[in-house]
Amino acid sequence: MKPIYILNGPNLNLLGQREPGIYGPGTIADLERRCAAKGKSLGHATVFRQTNTEGEMIDWIHEAQDKASGIIVNGAAYTHTSVALHDALKAVNLPTIEVHLSNIYKREPFRHHSYISPVAHGVICGFGGAGYELALEGLSNILKSTGKG
Amino acid sequence: MKPIYILNGPNLNLLGQREPGIYGPGTIADLERRCAAKGKSLGHATVFRQTNTEGEMIDWIHEAQDKASGIIVNGAAYTHTSVALHDALKAVNLPTIEVHLSNIYKREPFRHHSYISPVAHGVICGFGGAGYELALEGLSNILKSTGKG
Amino acid sequence: MKPIYILNGPNLNLLGQREPGIYGPGTIADLERRCAAKGKSLGHATVFRQTNTEGEMIDWIHEAQDKASGIIVNGAAYTHTSVALHDALKAVNLPTIEVHLSNIYKREPFRHHSYISPVAHGVICGFGGAGYELALEGLSNILKSTGKG
Amino acid sequence: MKPIYILNGPNLNLLGQREPGIYGPGTIADLERRCAAKGKSLGHATVFRQTNTEGEMIDWIHEAQDKASGIIVNGAAYTHTSVALHDALKAVNLPTIEVHLSNIYKREPFRHHSYISPVAHGVICGFGGAGYELALEGLSNILKSTGKG
Amino acid sequence: MKPIYILNGPNLNLLGQREPGIYGPGTIADLERRCAAKGKSLGHATVFRQTNTEGEMIDWIHEAQDKASGIIVNGAAYTHTSVALHDALKAVNLPTIEVHLSNIYKREPFRHHSYISPVAHGVICGFGGAGYELALEGLSNILKSTGKG
Amino acid sequence: MKPIYILNGPNLNLLGQREPGIYGPGTIADLERRCAAKGKSLGHATVFRQTNTEGEMIDWIHEAQDKASGIIVNGAAYTHTSVALHDALKAVNLPTIEVHLSNIYKREPFRHHSYISPVAHGVICGFGGAGYELALEGLSNILKSTGKG
Amino acid sequence: MKPIYILNGPNLNLLGQREPGIYGPGTIADLERRCAAKGKSLGHATVFRQTNTEGEMIDWIHEAQDKASGIIVNGAAYTHTSVALHDALKAVNLPTIEVHLSNIYKREPFRHHSYISPVAHGVICGFGGAGYELALEGLSNILKSTGKG
Amino acid sequence: MKPIYILNGPNLNLLGQREPGIYGPGTIADLERRCAAKGKSLGHATVFRQTNTEGEMIDWIHEAQDKASGIIVNGAAYTHTSVALHDALKAVNLPTIEVHLSNIYKREPFRHHSYISPVAHGVICGFGGAGYELALEGLSNILKSTGKG
Amino acid sequence: MKPIYILNGPNLNLLGQREPGIYGPGTIADLERRCAAKGKSLGHATVFRQTNTEGEMIDWIHEAQDKASGIIVNGAAYTHTSVALHDALKAVNLPTIEVHLSNIYKREPFRHHSYISPVAHGVICGFGGAGYELALEGLSNILKSTGKG
Amino acid sequence: MKPIYILNGPNLNLLGQREPGIYGPGTIADLERRCAAKGKSLGHATVFRQTNTEGEMIDWIHEAQDKASGIIVNGAAYTHTSVALHDALKAVNLPTIEVHLSNIYKREPFRHHSYISPVAHGVICGFGGAGYELALEGLSNILKSTGKG
Amino acid sequence: MKPIYILNGPNLNLLGQREPGIYGPGTIADLERRCAAKGKSLGHATVFRQTNTEGEMIDWIHEAQDKASGIIVNGAAYTHTSVALHDALKAVNLPTIEVHLSNIYKREPFRHHSYISPVAHGVICGFGGAGYELALEGLSNILKSTGKG
Amino acid sequence: MKPIYILNGPNLNLLGQREPGIYGPGTIADLERRCAAKGKSLGHATVFRQTNTEGEMIDWIHEAQDKASGIIVNGAAYTHTSVALHDALKAVNLPTIEVHLSNIYKREPFRHHSYISPVAHGVICGFGGAGYELALEGLSNILKSTGKG
Repeated sequence: MKPIYILNGPNLNLLGQREPGIYGPGTIADLERRCAAKGKSLGHATVFRQTNTEGEMIDWIHEAQDKASGIIVNGAAYTHTSVALHDALKAVNLPTIEVHLSNIYKREPFRHHSYISPVAHGVICGFGGAGYELALEGLSNILKSTGKG
Repeated sequence: MKPIYILNGPNLNLLGQREPGIYGPGTIADLERRCAAKGKSLGHATVFRQTNTEGEMIDWIHEAQDKASGIIVNGAAYTHTSVALHDALKAVNLPTIEVHLSNIYKREPFRHHSYISPVAHGVICGFGGAGYELALEGLSNILKSTGKG
Repeated sequence: MKPIYILNGPNLNLLGQREPGIYGPGTIADLERRCAAKGKSLGHATVFRQTNTEGEMIDWIHEAQDKASGIIVNGAAYTHTSVALHDALKAVNLPTIEVHLSNIYKREPFRHHSYISPVAHGVICGFGGAGYELALEGLSNILKSTGKG
Repeated sequence: MKPIYILNGPNLNLLGQREPGIYGPGTIADLERRCAAKGKSLGHATVFRQTNTEGEMIDWIHEAQDKASGIIVNGAAYTHTSVALHDALKAVNLPTIEVHLSNIYKREPFRHHSYISPVAHGVICGFGGAGYELALEGLSNILKSTGKG
Repeated sequence: MKPIYILNGPNLNLLGQREPGIYGPGTIADLERRCAAKGKSLGHATVFRQTNTEGEMIDWIHEAQDKASGIIVNGAAYTHTSVALHDALKAVNLPTIEVHLSNIYKREPFRHHSYISPVAHGVICGFGGAGYELALEGLSNILKSTGKG
Repeated sequence: MKPIYILNGPNLNLLGQREPGIYGPGTIADLERRCAAKGKSLGHATVFRQTNTEGEMIDWIHEAQDKASGIIVNGAAYTHTSVALHDALKAVNLPTIEVHLSNIYKREPFRHHSYISPVAHGVICGFGGAGYELALEGLSNILKSTGKG
Repeated sequence: MKPIYILNGPNLNLLGQREPGIYGPGTIADLERRCAAKGKSLGHATVFRQTNTEGEMIDWIHEAQDKASGIIVNGAAYTHTSVALHDALKAVNLPTIEVHLSNIYKREPFRHHSYISPVAHGVICGFGGAGYELALEGLSNILKSTGKG
Repeated sequence: MKPIYILNGPNLNLLGQREPGIYGPGTIADLERRCAAKGKSLGHATVFRQTNTEGEMIDWIHEAQDKASGIIVNGAAYTHTSVALHDALKAVNLPTIEVHLSNIYKREPFRHHSYISPVAHGVICGFGGAGYELALEGLSNILKSTGKG
Repeated sequence: MKPIYILNGPNLNLLGQREPGIYGPGTIADLERRCAAKGKSLGHATVFRQTNTEGEMIDWIHEAQDKASGIIVNGAAYTHTSVALHDALKAVNLPTIEVHLSNIYKREPFRHHSYISPVAHGVICGFGGAGYELALEGLSNILKSTGKG
Repeated sequence: MKPIYILNGPNLNLLGQREPGIYGPGTIADLERRCAAKGKSLGHATVFRQTNTEGEMIDWIHEAQDKASGIIVNGAAYTHTSVALHDALKAVNLPTIEVHLSNIYKREPFRHHSYISPVAHGVICGFGGAGYELALEGLSNILKSTGKG
Repeated sequence: MKPIYILNGPNLNLLGQREPGIYGPGTIADLERRCAAKGKSLGHATVFRQTNTEGEMIDWIHEAQDKASGIIVNGAAYTHTSVALHDALKAVNLPTIEVHLSNIYKREPFRHHSYISPVAHGVICGFGGAGYELALEGLSNILKSTGKG
Repeated sequence: MKPIYILNGPNLNLLGQREPGIYGPGTIADLERRCAAKGKSLGHATVFRQTNTEGEMIDWIHEAQDKASGIIVNGAAYTHTSVALHDALKAVNLPTIEVHLSNIYKREPFRHHSYISPVAHGVICGFGGAGYELALEGLSNILKSTGKG
């Protein structure tokens, strides 16, 4: 079975130091460990990456087409501005879950629109790092129900 | 420990017959059973209700203030039009998770705005009935981490 | 053959006293008699109701699914604000005609948009009470042409 | 007694071949016959015309002032863009019914606004050719109630 | 002389516990007593009610037509979304004062528009419970100057 | 010296009978005589025309390029919708004065925008028929100051 | 104890002759007397002024900082356009009540937004001259409850 | 017979040096002379003033109520921002002609809306200084036709 | 094999004299010759027409249904305002290419929206007269690939 | 060499007491001294003024045309509403620097648009009083590079 | 003679597998071969590249300034969001043709605006891969007519 | 003491050749030298970089957190589209000055909004290369006043 790709967008490498009131105290390494553990408990390998470059995130989504069973994506700031991520996710057409650490609907208006949501299977936001675990669980169910997981 | 209130808005009583392509084949009784089972496995009692009347939904949210440990709310159509639900949830100030069966961001533009999201702790949509289970899990974690669950 | 449900929204109980320059001098009882007579002449029983509560109107639409052959609906003020009525009519999927006594497009801008029109078979407005008779005639033709009337 | 003018706007000459899923299988000649028959049964002669030119339609509306007892107008595409038709109908001030074969409110947003509705007595849409018969009936009632029909 | 109806919308039953920083420490029972005392000093009986259901509020406005000399209305959240309340108040056409405890123009943009203001005689907001007393005084003057109070 | 073209748009043939409260009691023949007299007193022949067809108005503007010294145009309803008139006037590039009988800025919002104003030398509105005389005077001055009149 | 400043904006000097249907028959001298009497009955001296110049109104607000206990302000037309009045009131930070003679929400859309409301304690409109008396009463209560009146 | 007031707004004192390509080479003294001469030829005295202060312009409009037979107003930049000028002109209710030297509809979008147009009898723009002469002529006709000139 | 219809909208008869900086120096006769030559080299006869009247353009599109293999249309100003052309092209459903001499997206905002684009197979703009040759080539390919050319 | 005019708009006379969190602790006299010192060090005399009246500010800008070498302007609240200041600065056409004490783009949306920026040479905001010193330095450079300073 | 640069934006590397109903069955290698062949037949070498990174595309445009005779650019998703590509193309100022495989005006609204169109010589969309051939032909003509090809 | 980072966005490498009318004749190497000299005179080392890739700019901002005392950022085109730069600057939370060579408020509307301004300490634009020197001076003052420079 192929692993689940967990792709993280710009500035998430600063987790733990960037606005902890919004994003929580854990670092991105903590988050990666947490995802690996949860994935393992569900029987899935995970590939966890972070980039500040929109084009690199698109490359990874393309790569996922052959190498992943599904995608969990936290587009961070690119969520709100990137038609290119929308197109990439639509093109590869894997089961995709959109995650956000914070509840983006409680924040500035320019964070209320997502180009990713219309091409995602489901959306989870506001649960901090636990949202990734819920996303893994939700994605795992989808993969199982379609005989892919 | 107080139970979790799971409150469902208008037309959700028709689950199973209303646009199954969007909402899935299960009935609302199926959904209630599924929630009760999941809640039990997490150590929570659940109170599951549905109404077509906005005012009744508000009454239940008020009732929850004393009788519930947290709320899972699917406002259905009222999600998009009800300032009153927004105010009710803000007033009782319990941990609240917003759920939608479908991914509302894939549908008509008038379903893209939610008056509930800004007063919810987290939002989960697009997972069908499984979204309620994820919400229960997420809410259970929050209650535990704050010593209430 | 099942009757036609004729459902009337908020404030229509005041017909005859509320802005007679716009809504005409007849009362809602007059309107109910007129509909019954017209229905009878076309071979249809009619069930005529009015409510000020959005949720009760939704309940009646759900009830219609089993008990009615078609719906004539005057949503009154809820026409312009209720996504829930939109969803209810879409869910039961009976032949539906939207009626308004006044020509809503001649009035305030907030009355120009209807959430009901996109889920109705046809729309008739501006004919006063006679619009209900036209709606019954139109609905009767639809039911006959589809072998249901 | 003067006849009723039934004026049809651009592209309606293509009826029967243009998007039959929306406009139905009948031709404009069928529609003319149907109107003549219905008019006759109600005691009204009918003058039925179609043009693709906005200015010609305005000329006919002006002509109607002296020669017609009322107007049934299907402005087709000009409905949505023509302030000039609005002005013409307002100027001649005959009882006027606006008709559309399709339910324009179910279609593209640019068909949701009508410059004709604010100067029409009533509006009927979504009944296909039968809408013209309903309009004739409705207009006939108006003419009779005002002693002109 | 008929009493003054004082009608309160959704969530106002929570007064004293809901966001005291905005709404003040008094309960709705306190507010009712305060209104009764002020009314008495002005020579008016008062009928004080609260509901979370839009339709019930409309029913009360209709009832007021025969039983009340004037209306003081705090539509709360329905202020901003209810065309039906607008229509009800316009239909009964009694002297009406709109009141809000908080200054709604200092709050979220979706609270800046009121469907009630255009059908009210006057508007008072931002004075907390004292605003009801000012409204009673203002309404009393209007009733006296028109020989109804 | 070439004459001044005075071009009138849709429905102006109805002058004297169409909304006299707005447009005044004079007919279009009266207006034509008035313009001819004023033109004569200023030393200009005038060509006065009216049409209900947008395309015919464009043809006349093109014709004016060779045959007229300047244009006075009352676009009537086409003022607000016709990019084609805008283009025609811009293309022929003759001194052009826009006239309206009524003060269009006192009327419906859809009459507040003019596609003609940005390509006119000057604009005069609200003087009734006298506005044409002022326009002739203004245009005459322009022609004289540029050695063309 | 310092007096209450009552500051009136442009055109209010014409009271009694300007649109009496909207503003009532009383003159500004009547209004001044009425305020003085009411103030006296509440134990407050009043300083009553009117100006047509925005800058003079700002000067008076600044002056109030040292010389007044509170402000009642009717910004008239400047209400809708003056960021400078907003800033002045925010800077001096005295208890401020906004008053309008007419119900501005029943009038043209450009009168529906106020730059003063977000920096006022409360707002009263639609009561004619009596609104000033209510404002004095409301302001007096605030001053007393904060130990300043 | 009372004189005609010709009131000029901000920056018009710079005529002749400010953007001569738009406003022409004449100074404001030239313009005043030209108006006096034209007024004299029509039998009207003229009072010609300019100010950079909105409040002073309002004072002059109020003064005109008793001392002038009509007003010609070039609000300059205040045209686009001053509700107060709108109110002043509406209050005094004298025959008023709005003039602009340039064609404001050919310039920046923020110059396309005028608060003065809806309260003016007529509007003339784009004729440079000659527009004032046309305005005097137009206003003279109005005064004569109403027996005031 | 049927010819290709090349239909040109309002003001294009002025080519060569109208804003040559935008539209180039060639006349419409030059353009017609160029199209005929290109068509011949591709094995297609061409019918080249121009009109200033929207209705005549619609008539030609209807005529094309039987007599043409495809349409090249330059709607000129009607591109931006004509729902009727949209409907006509949609109704006849021939392979259609939209052409503009200038790059309409570099010009005024009101030229950025086209009612024709959503019903065209392809769009070419900004190539001057050469755009017609490209369109002929593109259309020829489409006709050949579908066995019609 | 002529001095630099430093012109300050409404409410800036309150510096030091008005929202010190935003505007800093210094008074306007401090600011004047600071500017004089910095100007002197750069070899420029300075004229420093403040007014609450828009018209006075315009008068000073006009005066600057003859008496100043350049302008530093802090329009304060008038920045966002005054077309008249825009016109005045454009008319005198001196090198102009716009300054704001606070970073206006961090504040309310109505402070994000400036009518002064499009007619200024440069803009400096967010540096408190130091911004005036930077502006003097920047303006001094411009004057020197153009041989005027 | 320098080659023509053909630059392709994000996700175009997936051609042939991404939504073949919209983009056609050919791969990007097919497209490259097709362009090379067409270029050769016209006497132009071609450099064909694709990237998912906005910055890399900008680098290539800068490189083109010295090394290319012209640019054909398919910005894909960046078309709609990249001011930086707009600036890059404007800065190098080579003859540029914008190409899209699909007709972007038939798709989602967020694809209707292009930042590239205002800085392109011409635009071609909706012809699939054949659009690149048309673009090469069009660009070749431009280069020849300016003596560069 | 740590150096000041001066980060430049897309297309600024073309300085000196790109629209010199807007950006001036100097190259980016000139600008770097000028900044180094000014920095030196103020006692600050400077690190000067340019990139066309949004992600690289974000990486540098993150790097600055440990290695720089403050940031001067010219986001160029990314200023207007990048939520990611906004987030990066907010996360590292160093004193930041936004600079633009041109006055962006004099240019196209899409350059009037900056995602960087709300997270910058101050903004300087329109001074060409001298703006960087002013920014260094302003930033130096801030660092000194907070004991960091």
